[in-house]
Amino acid sequence: MAATGTLYGVGLGPGDPELLTLKAVRILQTVPVVAYLAPPDSRSQAREIAAPWLRGQREVPIPAPCQADRRQANQAYDEAALVLAQELEAGRDVALLCEGDPLFYGSFTYMMQRLAGRFPCVVIPGISSVNAVAAVIGRPLVTGNERIAVIPATAGEDAVRQALAEYDSIAIMKPGRRRARIVELLRETGRLADAVYVEQATRPEQRIVSDITTLESTAGPYFSLFLVSRGVAA
Amino acid sequence: MAATGTLYGVGLGPGDPELLTLKAVRILQTVPVVAYLAPPDSRSQAREIAAPWLRGQREVPIPAPCQADRRQANQAYDEAALVLAQELEAGRDVALLCEGDPLFYGSFTYMMQRLAGRFPCVVIPGISSVNAVAAVIGRPLVTGNERIAVIPATAGEDAVRQALAEYDSIAIMKPGRRRARIVELLRETGRLADAVYVEQATRPEQRIVSDITTLESTAGPYFSLFLVSRGVAA
Repeated sequence: MAATGTLYGVGLGPGDPELLTLKAVRILQTVPVVAYLAPPDSRSQAREIAAPWLRGQREVPIPAPCQADRRQANQAYDEAALVLAQELEAGRDVALLCEGDPLFYGSFTYMMQRLAGRFPCVVIPGISSVNAVAAVIGRPLVTGNERIAVIPATAGEDAVRQALAEYDSIAIMKPGRRRARIVELLRETGRLADAVYVEQATRPEQRIVSDITTLESTAGPYFSLFLVSRGVAA
Repeated sequence: MAATGTLYGVGLGPGDPELLTLKAVRILQTVPVVAYLAPPDSRSQAREIAAPWLRGQREVPIPAPCQADRRQANQAYDEAALVLAQELEAGRDVALLCEGDPLFYGSFTYMMQRLAGRFPCVVIPGISSVNAVAAVIGRPLVTGNERIAVIPATAGEDAVRQALAEYDSIAIMKPGRRRARIVELLRETGRLADAVYVEQATRPEQRIVSDITTLESTAGPYFSLFLVSRGVAA
Protein backbone atom coordinates (compact mmCIF):
# COMPACT_ATOMS: atom_id res chain seq x y z
CA MET A 1 0.00 0.00 0.00
CA ALA A 2 1.39 3.40 -0.99
CA ALA A 3 2.19 5.94 1.71
CA THR A 4 -0.35 8.69 2.23
CA GLY A 5 0.43 12.34 1.53
CA THR A 6 1.24 14.95 4.17
CA LEU A 7 -1.02 17.90 4.95
CA TYR A 8 1.00 21.12 5.24
CA GLY A 9 -0.50 24.18 6.89
CA VAL A 10 1.60 26.89 5.24
CA GLY A 11 1.71 30.27 6.99
CA LEU A 12 2.15 33.01 4.37
CA GLY A 13 2.50 35.99 6.69
CA PRO A 14 0.53 39.25 6.57
CA GLY A 15 0.67 39.99 2.83
CA ASP A 16 4.09 41.42 1.95
CA PRO A 17 5.43 38.78 -0.48
CA GLU A 18 8.89 39.11 1.12
CA LEU A 19 7.50 38.03 4.51
CA LEU A 20 7.14 34.39 3.49
CA THR A 21 9.65 32.11 5.17
CA LEU A 22 12.17 30.07 3.18
CA LYS A 23 10.36 26.95 4.37
CA ALA A 24 6.99 28.17 3.09
CA VAL A 25 8.53 28.89 -0.31
CA ARG A 26 10.15 25.43 -0.46
CA ILE A 27 6.85 23.69 0.36
CA LEU A 28 4.90 25.81 -2.15
CA GLN A 29 7.38 24.90 -4.87
CA THR A 30 7.40 21.16 -4.23
CA VAL A 31 3.87 20.01 -3.28
CA PRO A 32 1.67 18.59 -6.07
CA VAL A 33 -1.56 20.06 -4.63
CA VAL A 34 -2.36 23.54 -3.31
CA ALA A 35 -5.62 24.26 -1.45
CA TYR A 36 -7.06 27.51 -0.14
CA LEU A 37 -10.27 29.07 1.12
CA ALA A 38 -12.00 30.94 -1.69
CA PRO A 39 -14.63 33.54 -0.74
CA PRO A 40 -17.64 33.41 -3.09
CA ASP A 41 -17.44 37.09 -4.05
CA SER A 42 -13.72 37.77 -4.32
CA ARG A 43 -10.34 36.22 -5.03
CA SER A 44 -8.39 34.28 -2.39
CA GLN A 45 -5.89 36.67 -0.80
CA ALA A 46 -3.85 33.69 0.42
CA ARG A 47 -3.51 32.44 -3.15
CA GLU A 48 -2.44 35.91 -4.28
CA ILE A 49 0.36 36.00 -1.69
CA ALA A 50 1.53 32.54 -2.75
CA ALA A 51 1.11 33.08 -6.51
CA PRO A 52 4.73 34.04 -7.37
CA TRP A 53 5.90 30.64 -6.06
CA LEU A 54 3.29 28.31 -7.58
CA ARG A 55 4.34 26.19 -10.53
CA GLY A 56 1.12 25.09 -12.15
CA GLN A 57 0.20 22.52 -9.49
CA ARG A 58 -3.31 21.17 -9.09
CA GLU A 59 -5.36 23.78 -7.17
CA VAL A 60 -8.25 22.95 -4.84
CA PRO A 61 -10.32 26.02 -3.91
CA ILE A 62 -12.43 25.44 -0.79
CA PRO A 63 -15.68 27.44 -0.64
CA ALA A 64 -15.20 29.70 2.40
CA PRO A 65 -18.12 29.25 4.79
CA CYS A 66 -19.86 31.99 6.75
CA GLN A 67 -18.22 31.81 10.20
CA ALA A 68 -21.31 33.25 11.88
CA ASP A 69 -23.34 30.10 11.17
CA ARG A 70 -21.38 27.44 13.09
CA ARG A 71 -23.38 24.50 11.74
CA GLN A 72 -23.05 25.58 8.13
CA ALA A 73 -19.34 26.25 8.62
CA ASN A 74 -18.76 22.80 10.10
CA GLN A 75 -20.57 21.20 7.18
CA ALA A 76 -18.42 23.14 4.69
CA TYR A 77 -15.24 22.05 6.51
CA ASP A 78 -16.46 18.44 6.54
CA GLU A 79 -16.93 18.55 2.77
CA ALA A 80 -13.55 20.21 2.21
CA ALA A 81 -11.87 17.57 4.39
CA LEU A 82 -13.33 14.84 2.16
CA VAL A 83 -11.83 16.49 -0.92
CA LEU A 84 -8.40 16.91 0.69
CA ALA A 85 -8.51 13.36 2.11
CA GLN A 86 -8.85 12.01 -1.45
CA GLU A 87 -5.63 13.75 -2.44
CA LEU A 88 -3.80 12.60 0.69
CA GLU A 89 -5.03 9.01 0.33
CA ALA A 90 -3.68 9.01 -3.22
CA GLY A 91 -0.25 9.79 -1.75
CA ARG A 92 -0.17 13.45 -2.80
CA ASP A 93 1.09 16.12 -0.37
CA VAL A 94 -1.30 19.05 0.05
CA ALA A 95 -0.31 22.61 1.03
CA LEU A 96 -3.20 24.49 2.60
CA LEU A 97 -2.46 28.20 2.18
CA CYS A 98 -2.96 30.30 5.31
CA GLU A 99 -2.69 34.06 5.69
CA GLY A 100 -0.63 35.04 8.75
CA ASP A 101 0.06 32.08 11.03
CA PRO A 102 -2.00 28.89 10.48
CA LEU A 103 -2.69 28.32 14.21
CA PHE A 104 -3.47 31.95 15.14
CA TYR A 105 -7.18 32.46 14.35
CA GLY A 106 -6.76 30.41 11.18
CA SER A 107 -9.30 28.18 9.44
CA PHE A 108 -6.46 25.67 9.12
CA THR A 109 -7.28 24.54 12.66
CA TYR A 110 -10.63 23.19 11.49
CA MET A 111 -9.03 21.18 8.69
CA MET A 112 -6.26 19.89 10.98
CA GLN A 113 -8.93 18.74 13.43
CA ARG A 114 -10.56 16.66 10.71
CA LEU A 115 -7.43 15.25 9.02
CA ALA A 116 -4.50 15.13 11.47
CA GLY A 117 -5.64 11.83 13.00
CA ARG A 118 -5.44 10.02 9.67
CA PHE A 119 -2.63 11.78 7.82
CA PRO A 120 0.76 13.28 8.74
CA CYS A 121 0.28 16.99 9.40
CA VAL A 122 3.06 19.62 9.42
CA VAL A 123 2.58 23.30 10.29
CA ILE A 124 4.86 26.01 8.85
CA PRO A 125 4.44 29.00 11.17
CA GLY A 126 3.96 32.43 9.60
CA ILE A 127 4.36 36.07 10.65
CA SER A 128 1.11 36.99 12.40
CA SER A 129 -0.72 40.27 11.87
CA VAL A 130 0.15 41.34 15.42
CA ASN A 131 3.91 41.10 14.81
CA ALA A 132 3.45 42.76 11.41
CA VAL A 133 1.54 45.72 12.86
CA ALA A 134 4.20 46.34 15.53
CA ALA A 135 6.88 46.34 12.81
CA VAL A 136 5.09 48.78 10.48
CA ILE A 137 4.36 51.27 13.27
CA GLY A 138 7.79 50.75 14.88
CA ARG A 139 6.51 50.19 18.42
CA PRO A 140 7.42 47.34 20.78
CA LEU A 141 4.76 44.73 21.51
CA VAL A 142 6.18 43.87 24.93
CA THR A 143 9.49 44.36 26.77
CA GLY A 144 10.93 43.08 30.06
CA ASN A 145 8.17 41.89 32.40
CA GLU A 146 5.29 43.29 30.34
CA ARG A 147 2.21 41.20 29.48
CA ILE A 148 0.15 41.20 26.29
CA ALA A 149 -3.42 40.07 25.68
CA VAL A 150 -4.86 39.32 22.24
CA ILE A 151 -8.64 39.60 22.09
CA PRO A 152 -11.11 39.49 19.19
CA ALA A 153 -13.61 42.36 19.37
CA THR A 154 -16.25 39.63 19.15
CA ALA A 155 -15.20 38.27 22.59
CA GLY A 156 -17.42 40.84 24.29
CA GLU A 157 -17.01 44.29 25.81
CA ASP A 158 -16.27 43.10 29.33
CA ALA A 159 -13.31 41.06 28.14
CA VAL A 160 -11.96 43.98 26.11
CA ARG A 161 -12.45 46.46 28.95
CA GLN A 162 -10.75 44.19 31.47
CA ALA A 163 -7.74 43.57 29.25
CA LEU A 164 -7.36 47.32 28.60
CA ALA A 165 -7.39 47.94 32.35
CA GLU A 166 -5.00 45.16 33.33
CA TYR A 167 -2.53 44.43 30.51
CA ASP A 168 0.43 46.49 29.35
CA SER A 169 -0.24 45.70 25.69
CA ILE A 170 -3.45 44.57 23.98
CA ALA A 171 -4.17 43.63 20.38
CA ILE A 172 -7.87 43.91 19.56
CA MET A 173 -8.54 41.78 16.49
CA LYS A 174 -11.31 41.96 13.87
CA PRO A 175 -12.90 45.22 15.06
CA GLY A 176 -15.21 45.32 12.00
CA ARG A 177 -18.56 46.88 12.84
CA ARG A 178 -17.50 47.21 16.51
CA ARG A 179 -14.74 49.64 15.57
CA ALA A 180 -16.39 52.82 16.90
CA ARG A 181 -17.35 51.04 20.11
CA ILE A 182 -13.73 49.95 20.65
CA VAL A 183 -12.69 53.60 20.42
CA GLU A 184 -15.21 54.36 23.19
CA LEU A 185 -13.78 51.58 25.38
CA LEU A 186 -10.26 52.95 24.82
CA ARG A 187 -11.49 56.36 25.96
CA GLU A 188 -13.26 54.90 29.01
CA THR A 189 -10.15 53.04 30.14
CA GLY A 190 -7.81 55.98 29.53
CA ARG A 191 -5.86 54.21 26.78
CA LEU A 192 -6.70 56.33 23.73
CA ALA A 193 -3.17 57.74 23.56
CA ASP A 194 -1.63 54.24 23.74
CA ALA A 195 -3.59 52.95 20.74
CA VAL A 196 -2.85 52.78 17.02
CA TYR A 197 -5.25 51.37 14.41
CA VAL A 198 -3.84 49.60 11.35
CA GLU A 199 -5.58 48.10 8.29
CA GLN A 200 -3.95 45.67 5.84
CA ALA A 201 -0.49 45.83 7.44
CA THR A 202 2.37 45.36 4.92
CA ARG A 203 -0.04 45.32 1.94
CA PRO A 204 -0.32 48.03 -0.72
CA GLU A 205 -3.66 49.07 0.90
CA GLN A 206 -1.99 49.53 4.31
CA ARG A 207 -3.47 52.34 6.41
CA ILE A 208 -2.16 53.54 9.78
CA VAL A 209 -4.29 55.76 12.02
CA SER A 210 -2.16 57.08 14.91
CA ASP A 211 -4.76 59.50 16.28
CA ILE A 212 -7.67 57.15 16.60
CA THR A 213 -10.08 59.92 17.61
CA THR A 214 -10.07 60.76 13.89
CA LEU A 215 -11.27 57.26 12.92
CA GLU A 216 -14.58 57.04 11.04
CA SER A 217 -17.52 55.67 13.05
CA THR A 218 -18.41 53.24 10.25
CA ALA A 219 -17.49 49.56 10.09
CA GLY A 220 -13.92 48.69 9.09
CA PRO A 221 -12.44 45.99 6.83
CA TYR A 222 -11.65 42.44 8.00
CA PHE A 223 -7.86 42.78 8.03
CA SER A 224 -7.44 45.40 10.72
CA LEU A 225 -6.59 45.66 14.40
CA PHE A 226 -5.98 48.04 17.27
CA LEU A 227 -2.60 47.77 18.99
CA VAL A 228 -2.43 49.28 22.45
CA SER A 229 0.93 49.54 24.21
CA ARG A 230 2.79 51.63 26.75
CA GLY A 231 5.53 52.66 24.34
CA VAL A 232 9.22 52.23 25.03
CA ALA A 233 10.21 51.91 28.68
CA ALA A 234 13.68 53.17 29.58
CA MET B 1 26.43 65.88 3.41
CA ALA B 2 26.06 62.16 2.87
CA ALA B 3 22.82 60.41 3.87
CA THR B 4 22.92 58.46 7.10
CA GLY B 5 22.53 54.69 7.19
CA THR B 6 19.38 52.82 8.16
CA LEU B 7 19.09 50.69 11.29
CA TYR B 8 17.39 47.36 10.51
CA GLY B 9 15.96 45.22 13.30
CA VAL B 10 16.06 41.83 11.60
CA GLY B 11 13.85 39.10 13.10
CA LEU B 12 15.49 35.71 12.53
CA GLY B 13 12.73 33.49 13.92
CA PRO B 14 13.06 30.74 16.53
CA GLY B 15 16.20 28.99 15.25
CA ASP B 16 15.28 26.75 12.31
CA PRO B 17 17.36 28.30 9.50
CA GLU B 18 14.43 27.80 7.10
CA LEU B 19 12.19 30.03 9.24
CA LEU B 20 13.92 33.23 8.17
CA THR B 21 11.81 35.40 5.89
CA LEU B 22 12.89 36.29 2.37
CA LYS B 23 13.16 39.90 3.53
CA ALA B 24 15.49 39.01 6.40
CA VAL B 25 17.73 37.08 4.00
CA ARG B 26 17.84 40.00 1.55
CA ILE B 27 18.81 42.48 4.27
CA LEU B 28 21.46 40.13 5.70
CA GLN B 29 23.01 39.77 2.26
CA THR B 30 23.12 43.46 1.42
CA VAL B 31 23.97 45.48 4.56
CA PRO B 32 27.62 46.42 5.12
CA VAL B 33 27.44 46.05 8.92
CA VAL B 34 25.94 43.30 11.09
CA ALA B 35 25.53 43.74 14.87
CA TYR B 36 24.36 41.31 17.55
CA LEU B 37 24.32 40.80 21.30
CA ALA B 38 27.19 38.55 22.36
CA PRO B 39 26.97 36.88 25.76
CA PRO B 40 30.35 36.90 27.56
CA ASP B 41 30.43 33.12 28.07
CA SER B 42 28.95 31.72 24.85
CA ARG B 43 28.48 32.34 21.15
CA SER B 44 25.68 34.55 19.83
CA GLN B 45 22.77 32.29 18.86
CA ALA B 46 21.38 35.06 16.63
CA ARG B 47 24.64 35.16 14.69
CA GLU B 48 24.55 31.38 14.29
CA ILE B 49 21.06 31.51 12.78
CA ALA B 50 22.16 34.26 10.38
CA ALA B 51 25.59 32.75 9.56
CA PRO B 52 24.64 30.95 6.30
CA TRP B 53 23.62 34.29 4.78
CA LEU B 54 26.49 36.55 5.89
CA ARG B 55 29.08 37.52 3.30
CA GLY B 56 32.07 38.68 5.29
CA GLN B 57 30.59 42.02 6.31
CA ARG B 58 31.93 44.06 9.20
CA GLU B 59 30.58 42.54 12.44
CA VAL B 60 29.87 44.50 15.62
CA PRO B 61 29.35 42.26 18.66
CA ILE B 62 27.57 44.08 21.48
CA PRO B 63 28.43 42.85 25.00
CA ALA B 64 25.11 41.47 26.31
CA PRO B 65 24.32 43.11 29.65
CA CYS B 66 22.79 41.41 32.66
CA GLN B 67 19.08 42.26 32.41
CA ALA B 68 18.61 41.93 36.17
CA ASP B 69 20.66 45.07 36.82
CA ARG B 70 18.64 47.76 35.03
CA ARG B 71 21.22 50.53 35.48
CA GLN B 72 24.09 48.42 34.19
CA ALA B 73 21.96 47.24 31.26
CA ASN B 74 21.04 50.80 30.31
CA GLN B 75 24.69 51.82 30.40
CA ALA B 76 25.66 48.91 28.14
CA TYR B 77 22.89 49.85 25.65
CA ASP B 78 24.05 53.50 25.74
CA GLU B 79 27.57 52.41 24.82
CA ALA B 80 26.36 50.06 22.09
CA ALA B 81 24.19 52.85 20.65
CA LEU B 82 27.28 55.07 20.34
CA VAL B 83 29.08 52.37 18.37
CA LEU B 84 26.13 51.79 16.02
CA ALA B 85 25.59 55.54 15.63
CA GLN B 86 29.13 55.86 14.27
CA GLU B 87 28.35 53.36 11.53
CA LEU B 88 24.99 54.98 10.73
CA GLU B 89 26.50 58.49 10.66
CA ALA B 90 29.09 57.25 8.18
CA GLY B 91 26.20 56.27 5.89
CA ARG B 92 26.44 52.52 6.48
CA ASP B 93 23.27 50.46 6.99
CA VAL B 94 23.35 48.27 10.10
CA ALA B 95 21.40 45.02 10.58
CA LEU B 96 20.87 44.22 14.25
CA LEU B 97 20.25 40.48 14.48
CA CYS B 98 17.28 39.47 16.66
CA GLU B 99 16.13 35.98 17.62
CA GLY B 100 12.38 35.54 17.17
CA ASP B 101 10.60 38.85 16.53
CA PRO B 102 12.55 42.08 17.27
CA LEU B 103 9.63 43.78 19.05
CA PHE B 104 8.47 40.79 21.12
CA TYR B 105 10.63 40.76 24.27
CA GLY B 106 13.64 41.73 22.17
CA SER B 107 16.66 43.82 23.17
CA PHE B 108 16.22 45.55 19.82
CA THR B 109 13.63 47.76 21.52
CA TYR B 110 16.34 49.31 23.68
CA MET B 111 18.52 50.13 20.67
CA MET B 112 15.55 51.47 18.69
CA GLN B 113 14.71 53.74 21.62
CA ARG B 114 18.20 55.24 21.50
CA LEU B 115 18.64 55.52 17.71
CA ALA B 116 15.25 55.78 15.94
CA GLY B 117 14.98 59.52 16.60
CA ARG B 118 18.21 60.26 14.68
CA PHE B 119 18.34 57.54 12.02
CA PRO B 120 15.83 55.77 9.77
CA CYS B 121 14.75 52.56 11.46
CA VAL B 122 13.09 49.57 9.75
CA VAL B 123 11.84 46.45 11.53
CA ILE B 124 11.66 43.07 9.75
CA PRO B 125 9.21 40.98 11.81
CA GLY B 126 10.18 37.39 12.63
CA ILE B 127 8.41 34.19 13.69
CA SER B 128 8.05 34.42 17.47
CA SER B 129 8.69 31.52 19.83
CA VAL B 130 4.97 31.36 20.65
CA ASN B 131 3.97 30.72 17.02
CA ALA B 132 6.88 28.28 16.66
CA VAL B 133 5.85 26.26 19.71
CA ALA B 134 2.25 25.94 18.49
CA ALA B 135 3.55 24.67 15.13
CA VAL B 136 5.91 22.05 16.57
CA ILE B 137 3.28 20.63 18.93
CA GLY B 138 0.51 20.94 16.31
CA ARG B 139 -2.00 22.70 18.57
CA PRO B 140 -3.96 25.87 17.79
CA LEU B 141 -3.00 29.03 19.68
CA VAL B 142 -6.48 30.55 19.39
CA THR B 143 -9.59 29.99 17.27
CA GLY B 144 -12.88 31.86 16.83
CA ASN B 145 -13.60 34.16 19.78
CA GLU B 146 -10.82 32.80 22.00
CA ARG B 147 -8.37 35.07 23.83
CA ILE B 148 -4.67 34.56 24.50
CA ALA B 149 -2.42 36.11 27.15
CA VAL B 150 1.37 36.11 26.98
CA ILE B 151 3.04 36.50 30.36
CA PRO B 152 6.67 36.24 31.48
CA ALA B 153 7.02 34.05 34.58
CA THR B 154 8.82 37.06 36.08
CA ALA B 155 5.58 39.11 36.01
CA GLY B 156 4.52 37.57 39.31
CA GLU B 157 2.35 34.68 40.47
CA ASP B 158 -0.87 36.66 40.74
CA ALA B 159 -0.67 37.70 37.09
CA VAL B 160 0.04 34.12 35.99
CA ARG B 161 -2.74 32.67 38.15
CA GLN B 162 -5.27 35.23 36.91
CA ALA B 163 -4.44 34.61 33.25
CA LEU B 164 -4.71 30.84 33.74
CA ALA B 165 -8.15 31.32 35.29
CA GLU B 166 -9.51 33.77 32.73
CA TYR B 167 -7.90 33.21 29.34
CA ASP B 168 -8.48 30.38 26.85
CA SER B 169 -4.80 30.22 25.92
CA ILE B 170 -1.73 31.39 27.83
CA ALA B 171 1.93 31.40 26.92
CA ILE B 172 4.16 31.59 30.00
CA MET B 173 7.56 32.85 28.87
CA LYS B 174 11.02 32.45 30.44
CA PRO B 175 10.03 30.00 33.22
CA GLY B 176 13.71 29.47 34.17
CA ARG B 177 14.07 28.87 37.89
CA ARG B 178 10.32 29.40 38.38
CA ARG B 179 9.55 26.33 36.27
CA ALA B 180 8.45 24.02 39.11
CA ARG B 181 6.33 26.79 40.62
CA ILE B 182 4.53 27.28 37.29
CA VAL B 183 3.62 23.59 37.31
CA GLU B 184 2.08 24.13 40.76
CA LEU B 185 0.06 27.10 39.49
CA LEU B 186 -1.18 25.00 36.55
CA ARG B 187 -2.30 22.34 39.02
CA GLU B 188 -4.00 24.92 41.28
CA THR B 189 -5.97 26.40 38.39
CA GLY B 190 -6.95 23.02 36.93
CA ARG B 191 -5.00 23.53 33.70
CA LEU B 192 -2.32 20.85 33.94
CA ALA B 193 -3.90 18.83 31.14
CA ASP B 194 -4.08 21.91 28.87
CA ALA B 195 -0.35 22.63 29.15
CA VAL B 196 2.68 21.59 27.11
CA TYR B 197 6.26 22.62 27.91
CA VAL B 198 8.73 23.19 25.05
CA GLU B 199 12.44 24.05 25.07
CA GLN B 200 14.41 25.32 22.05
CA ALA B 201 11.49 25.00 19.60
CA THR B 202 12.61 24.21 16.00
CA ARG B 203 16.30 23.85 17.06
CA PRO B 204 18.28 20.59 17.13
CA GLU B 205 18.05 20.68 20.97
CA GLN B 206 14.22 20.91 20.85
CA ARG B 207 12.46 19.13 23.71
CA ILE B 208 8.69 18.70 24.10
CA VAL B 209 7.16 17.64 27.43
CA SER B 210 3.47 16.82 26.96
CA ASP B 211 2.89 15.40 30.44
CA ILE B 212 4.28 18.23 32.48
CA THR B 213 3.85 16.38 35.77
CA THR B 214 7.01 14.53 34.64
CA LEU B 215 9.02 17.78 34.38
CA GLU B 216 12.11 18.06 36.59
CA SER B 217 11.83 20.45 39.54
CA THR B 218 15.14 22.10 38.64
CA ALA B 219 15.56 25.37 36.71
CA GLY B 220 15.11 25.24 32.92
CA PRO B 221 17.01 26.89 30.05
CA TYR B 222 16.30 30.40 28.77
CA PHE B 223 14.62 29.39 25.50
CA SER B 224 11.56 27.60 26.84
CA LEU B 225 7.88 28.25 27.49
CA PHE B 226 4.64 26.71 28.64
CA LEU B 227 1.76 26.82 26.18
CA VAL B 228 -1.68 26.34 27.69
CA SER B 229 -4.70 25.98 25.41
CA ARG B 230 -8.11 24.37 25.28
CA GLY B 231 -7.30 22.22 22.26
CA VAL B 232 -9.37 22.16 19.11
CA ALA B 233 -12.98 23.30 19.44
CA ALA B 234 -15.46 21.67 17.08
